[in-house]
Amino acid sequence: MKKWISPALLAITFILSAVAHYANWDHTLQFILSSIAVVFVAGFLGRATESVAHYAGQRLGGFLNATFGNAAELIIAFFLVKEGLFDMVKASLTGSIIGNLLLVLGLSIFAGGLKFKVQNFNVTLAGLNGSLMIVAIIALFVPAMFFNTHSITDEDTKLLSLIVAGILIVSYMAWLSFSMITHKKYLEDVTDKKDEVLPNEHAPVWSRNRSILYLILATVMVAFVSEWLVGTLETLTERFGFSELFVGAFLVAIIGNAAEHSAAILLAMKNKMGAAVEIAVGSSLQIALFVAPVLIFASYFMGNTMDIVFTTIELVAIAVAVFIAKSITQDGATNWYEGLLLLVVYLILGVSFYLV
Amino acid sequence: MKKWISPALLAITFILSAVAHYANWDHTLQFILSSIAVVFVAGFLGRATESVAHYAGQRLGGFLNATFGNAAELIIAFFLVKEGLFDMVKASLTGSIIGNLLLVLGLSIFAGGLKFKVQNFNVTLAGLNGSLMIVAIIALFVPAMFFNTHSITDEDTKLLSLIVAGILIVSYMAWLSFSMITHKKYLEDVTDKKDEVLPNEHAPVWSRNRSILYLILATVMVAFVSEWLVGTLETLTERFGFSELFVGAFLVAIIGNAAEHSAAILLAMKNKMGAAVEIAVGSSLQIALFVAPVLIFASYFMGNTMDIVFTTIELVAIAVAVFIAKSITQDGATNWYEGLLLLVVYLILGVSFYLV
Amino acid sequence: MKKWISPALLAITFILSAVAHYANWDHTLQFILSSIAVVFVAGFLGRATESVAHYAGQRLGGFLNATFGNAAELIIAFFLVKEGLFDMVKASLTGSIIGNLLLVLGLSIFAGGLKFKVQNFNVTLAGLNGSLMIVAIIALFVPAMFFNTHSITDEDTKLLSLIVAGILIVSYMAWLSFSMITHKKYLEDVTDKKDEVLPNEHAPVWSRNRSILYLILATVMVAFVSEWLVGTLETLTERFGFSELFVGAFLVAIIGNAAEHSAAILLAMKNKMGAAVEIAVGSSLQIALFVAPVLIFASYFMGNTMDIVFTTIELVAIAVAVFIAKSITQDGATNWYEGLLLLVVYLILGVSFYLV
Repeated sequence: MKKWISPALLAITFILSAVAHYANWDHTLQFILSSIAVVFVAGFLGRATESVAHYAGQRLGGFLNATFGNAAELIIAFFLVKEGLFDMVKASLTGSIIGNLLLVLGLSIFAGGLKFKVQNFNVTLAGLNGSLMIVAIIALFVPAMFFNTHSITDEDTKLLSLIVAGILIVSYMAWLSFSMITHKKYLEDVTDKKDEVLPNEHAPVWSRNRSILYLILATVMVAFVSEWLVGTLETLTERFGFSELFVGAFLVAIIGNAAEHSAAILLAMKNKMGAAVEIAVGSSLQIALFVAPVLIFASYFMGNTMDIVFTTIELVAIAVAVFIAKSITQDGATNWYEGLLLLVVYLILGVSFYLV
Repeated sequence: MKKWISPALLAITFILSAVAHYANWDHTLQFILSSIAVVFVAGFLGRATESVAHYAGQRLGGFLNATFGNAAELIIAFFLVKEGLFDMVKASLTGSIIGNLLLVLGLSIFAGGLKFKVQNFNVTLAGLNGSLMIVAIIALFVPAMFFNTHSITDEDTKLLSLIVAGILIVSYMAWLSFSMITHKKYLEDVTDKKDEVLPNEHAPVWSRNRSILYLILATVMVAFVSEWLVGTLETLTERFGFSELFVGAFLVAIIGNAAEHSAAILLAMKNKMGAAVEIAVGSSLQIALFVAPVLIFASYFMGNTMDIVFTTIELVAIAVAVFIAKSITQDGATNWYEGLLLLVVYLILGVSFYLV
Repeated sequence: MKKWISPALLAITFILSAVAHYANWDHTLQFILSSIAVVFVAGFLGRATESVAHYAGQRLGGFLNATFGNAAELIIAFFLVKEGLFDMVKASLTGSIIGNLLLVLGLSIFAGGLKFKVQNFNVTLAGLNGSLMIVAIIALFVPAMFFNTHSITDEDTKLLSLIVAGILIVSYMAWLSFSMITHKKYLEDVTDKKDEVLPNEHAPVWSRNRSILYLILATVMVAFVSEWLVGTLETLTERFGFSELFVGAFLVAIIGNAAEHSAAILLAMKNKMGAAVEIAVGSSLQIALFVAPVLIFASYFMGNTMDIVFTTIELVAIAVAVFIAKSITQDGATNWYEGLLLLVVYLILGVSFYLV
């Protein structure tokens, strides 16, 4: 692909999406155009983050990667929170987690497995990721359990949500300091020259100031496109009879994660399965341990606290995704059939969410 | 045991069972006689399948083994479906899965463990089996979850059941092509000359035509005996006050799996634990991924679609069996105490099902 | 610390607690004093048991260790059973299990991890412990499931409870004979000279008769102090508005396990992580497989059978603790972040139990 195609497509899709929004074109068309724009803008944001990270040095760079990695999801979710669409926020967080653990990871393992008989990656990091996934489920599951089995007041539910959110953010900060400071080398060793295999490898290295400018520009663009996209969702659910759950958990999630999808699959097909697993699993962990808690605090500061109580089927979907992903990654070896199993579980969940 | 004993016993028990049925003897006696006959006929079917498999070549042979392995359960279940006893079908599928994972595997590990301090088998296949078990639970669990938490119409439930059943059958076909074509050698290596240790080793090698004739004969006999057996169950539940759940999940399942039981235990006592694990775990996977979906399609073609919604305690029983079996097999080493733990879980489930 | 401090503190706290009880001091003060006394008396009981074990020889000694290890919890629970406070019994058993798996294990791994980058212990025993934990959950979970989904009579529930309790005690006896007789050496090898690293290493070796006298004295003291402590709990829940659940699951459990806490953490900081894990995990297994069933039989002989049906949130708390502890220990290596994760889960549960 020629170098100028990507910026051109970025500009065209962004402008088309803007025109569609302000000229108030048909909502279905607006949805399609802003969806396409989100994919390109998210990719641009990813490259800009990489470039800033390059200049910021490894540690701060890693942190920037980690926090901007899910920026598109975070910003989309912010607008959903602002509009008080809490159910769709939770559905889209759910969708993002299961989308990464089942669709992104499944496609990566399947595609990689078609080219390579068995693909290996380090068991230690897989185990650590598995434990973090379990903690993420627990943090979502326990409040819901207490909410469903006890007559807990609305205020206590919100207080509990804020406390749990706080605990998760602290855990996430501790994870950053663990993986980037105290046990940096320990984890670097195990992923075989992690820096080389990260998806960032082909990121453009613009000059420092340009990079920062691009990062600001990309964030602003993501913010706009996300708002345009969110604006169309309600019409969409009405017009096509999709449930909020299905739109949030599948449509929004797939669009918001498009950049990760392609990066992970390309890495897997280059036999860099460790990096592909990290993108998919790491991204879903960020959603649960950082994005979700931040949204709860954001809603609190906006004056209308969103609680952390997910619905039973959302929790089941997340638990199911974690169990199968943990089972498949824990031996540090994958093959095409294991990728297929992840896709099978995604399909079963998708059909179920659609039919409800 | 002399060679002629087995055919003689087969004939005698079959004829006695037939006489009992057509002369309309006491139903309890009919139940006992047809149960004994099922055990022998299932053994005969097993040997006939082996023999045909021998002539059919390894690949087709493996497929025949896989599909005829649970033929007795499948045929018993067909008659239950035909009579519309959907609850008992699901109970017997549940019983077959937990019977294989807890009773067959538990007795094998316990008996083998009394003779050998530690018995080893390959970890890779154990991990793969574990992931398949998780997928099997998910496929049963997700529809039930949606059914119990949402007001989903009867038609949508049946549609979802058919779709999930279709997905499972495709997954099973993919598993066959994975384990018998693309990764045949990979899995053969890990089970140490798999062909030699399979239970099939003592299967008689009759001539080709005779084998096919025997296979047809055995299938017909299983069909008859299964129908006679099923006919007595309702009287049995009425007369002894057993619940359908207990009869389906424990009595029918133990009888239907008798052949696997003895084969797996004998292999374990010969220190061929890998093969014993494969019979027990493989058989339970077949029930969940192939037999159950086929029965749903069969019921659809009979005009009265059985849904895939299992009761909560059936799902709990299956989940419980999968978790403990996965935990015990995943390190690729077993001892007598681990066998005992599986039997303990079976006993707890059995007592609970009996008392309800 | 000078040698005479501990006996002096033991005597002073015991006497103060006695005075507070019989002079009927303020209940909050009584609670504080008897709590402190329990900690010292439990420590004394621990050392006395060690000393008797030393003379009794390894096998019987191991058995004494195992059965007296949780003597304080057992005796506290006896008095709760006697007063018919079944809900608080179950809450305190729950608290003891999660306290050991999350707080004791978490602090040990965290404290050890601050001193050592990675701490290793044997994978085989970790796997076996994991399977036992799963069986423990199943034994608690299955009766509750049947109780909640079926109209099972009160009598049948108690019968089922007694049967399950009997099965668990037999399993525990089998575990003792497995780990101390048939596979003693197998497990000794894997924990690297287990005898040397057990917490017992600094236990005083008094003369034989003195040791037995001390053991009797310590048991009597524990019995008294426990009764005084239990007597204050109800006032405490009334005065401070704590729920029975929170008092039982957090306050009583932390006090009753204080001795284990310090022993395990000290071992972890000496890089004897295998022994620390065994104290924490082994203690929680004893509670589930031995203490809880014994209490059910005790209540039966007292004429008012306590059933084994735990509440949903107790089961969730136990399941959650088992899953994360199993996930973190199963690779046989720990670091400070994994300890933090266990503490995070304990904190989430604690806040939730407090707010309900």
